[in-house]
Amino acid sequence: MTTLDELPIRDDLRGLKPYGAPQLDVPVRLNTNENSYPVPEAVADAIGKALAAELRDLNRYPDRDAVALRADLAAYLGHGLTVGQVWAANGSNEIQQQLLQAFGGPGRTALGFTPAYSMHPLLALGAGTRWVPAQRGVDFGLTADEAVAQVRAHRPDVVFLCSPNNPTGTALDPAVVAAVLDAAPGMVVVDEAYAEFARPGTVSALAVLPGHPRLVVTRTMSKAFGFAGGRLGYLAADPAVVAAVQLVRLPYHLSALTQAAARAALAHRDALLATVEAIMGQRDRIVAELRARGLRVADSDANFVLFQSGGDQAVAWRALLEQGVLVRDVGLPGWLRVTAGTPAETDAFLTAMESL
Amino acid sequence: MTTLDELPIRDDLRGLKPYGAPQLDVPVRLNTNENSYPVPEAVADAIGKALAAELRDLNRYPDRDAVALRADLAAYLGHGLTVGQVWAANGSNEIQQQLLQAFGGPGRTALGFTPAYSMHPLLALGAGTRWVPAQRGVDFGLTADEAVAQVRAHRPDVVFLCSPNNPTGTALDPAVVAAVLDAAPGMVVVDEAYAEFARPGTVSALAVLPGHPRLVVTRTMSKAFGFAGGRLGYLAADPAVVAAVQLVRLPYHLSALTQAAARAALAHRDALLATVEAIMGQRDRIVAELRARGLRVADSDANFVLFQSGGDQAVAWRALLEQGVLVRDVGLPGWLRVTAGTPAETDAFLTAMESL
Repeated sequence: MTTLDELPIRDDLRGLKPYGAPQLDVPVRLNTNENSYPVPEAVADAIGKALAAELRDLNRYPDRDAVALRADLAAYLGHGLTVGQVWAANGSNEIQQQLLQAFGGPGRTALGFTPAYSMHPLLALGAGTRWVPAQRGVDFGLTADEAVAQVRAHRPDVVFLCSPNNPTGTALDPAVVAAVLDAAPGMVVVDEAYAEFARPGTVSALAVLPGHPRLVVTRTMSKAFGFAGGRLGYLAADPAVVAAVQLVRLPYHLSALTQAAARAALAHRDALLATVEAIMGQRDRIVAELRARGLRVADSDANFVLFQSGGDQAVAWRALLEQGVLVRDVGLPGWLRVTAGTPAETDAFLTAMESL
Repeated sequence: MTTLDELPIRDDLRGLKPYGAPQLDVPVRLNTNENSYPVPEAVADAIGKALAAELRDLNRYPDRDAVALRADLAAYLGHGLTVGQVWAANGSNEIQQQLLQAFGGPGRTALGFTPAYSMHPLLALGAGTRWVPAQRGVDFGLTADEAVAQVRAHRPDVVFLCSPNNPTGTALDPAVVAAVLDAAPGMVVVDEAYAEFARPGTVSALAVLPGHPRLVVTRTMSKAFGFAGGRLGYLAADPAVVAAVQLVRLPYHLSALTQAAARAALAHRDALLATVEAIMGQRDRIVAELRARGLRVADSDANFVLFQSGGDQAVAWRALLEQGVLVRDVGLPGWLRVTAGTPAETDAFLTAMESL
């Protein structure tokens, strides 16, 4: 039998393990920040009808530029955005990979503020881009001064910001985005995968797009929309950025099924996003309950909560799993991340936590 | 307005245009080697049912490893292959991109024999891999000696072979694959996108897989299966190769819809592949008719034909388009490529050719 090490893989891949949380079949799955609510039956029916209309023609390639879908996404985002300022792909991972292929690559550098979305350094690796793990400040915060100092020191070609940040959950002060945009020599990507869950008053970087062609805002339908299985990520930026990623995108990357299903989901956005408020309620409940029990908990603008588990987080993770509750060990010593789902899931999680 | 050139894109992307044939709405589209036959109604219904079963659960991420689909693909391929030897992605473009990310990348080299599938050098570019355009011989042929000499000269980390080759249409002598495998220091990827259309007696590189862990065979459901809109490509190789691409694949790259639709299509493979023989008949008819008219035509084991248009191929391309027939100008001076479709499409093409 041939082993992976015997193959001529790239040296910087040697010894790595594939990315991904365990996919375990347990009663309460709160580890990947999915939306716990199934797609409503009426919306599922509408998506099914939209898909059915495509099936006879699957022998033909899909619209390579996904124009209709991008127009729908622009309309959803608002801020006066139009189809030329929006691009879509199979998840925001593919969006960010395309950005790194266009603006990163060999001899170039990407920088993010750790802890943040752990795929960013892996996407950089896959795109042959050197990764600089800059650091967040006390309590996982990030001030404009802290961010700017590290950007100035490394002069990265691509900066990743996350707002709300994953795994910490807190949205970024818009002043940080503005300061980084000002200091960065290259592209600034604000990953807003969890934007729909932000607390009132949170400002999206979409508002900063006009006049900033080096700014890119990425979004996903995997979280608030409850469309993780449909795989649809997108970006909003200057039309020149859209032209840039079109140089590296795989032709026909978005299937006719993906385009049709995503458009149907967007047409029923009110029904799909109706769960957001309930999820925010559970998030706030988790934060309040854990703090009431004396645990340190990060402020959350997302559909998850980062909390101090008390002691070794790997031990706590296993103890929760034994009670049928799957949370995420993001590799931060002493901390765990839990997704906010249904009230019953919160009950199960909080009960399981009592045993720790 | 910001132009693409004002953005800090990679220097090697400057001046490029996005890949892709014109997507024009004309009566006879014979330019992208699609299967001209719509998906049969019974198969479309079956795919629709399979999709419907996924829709309520789209809030959950799909199976990251697409195990059930890969098992079905292995069963389709035969040759004793099992799930661990098969990997799937959104089109064989994504498969080949993953292979380049795992085995190519900065400081590494990929080589192909021009003219061949024109995405290969672009995939290498996107993955930061230096591309070596090796050459085919007389009449676009490729002998073992010609191939080995160029592989020895460049010692590439990844070699691409196409069988049947696109845009020329001819399958490769298995001796060439064996000789290249022997001479190449790295991976050898045989792109068999058109394998199902090969003339009787053609040997697939799948037969060579046992004992050759550096060999990868890529396939697609876009052509013979008539599933271009569904976007499903796959590879067969040693399990270690599958482990290698899992280090660079984007997590959850294959949507739940793609997995379900592809599985339903595979379950109805007999109905879908029933068009293959008719298409091969039209291909052979095109070859014979054009040769009878005194044109040079490449031997074809695919669902397309490369032929000498007489004079400037761009002028001929335009003349055919004006008669409602869209073929492909692949950039080979004096040559055009036409897809073999329905008998009526062949009629239209041959009639339009008379006007040249």
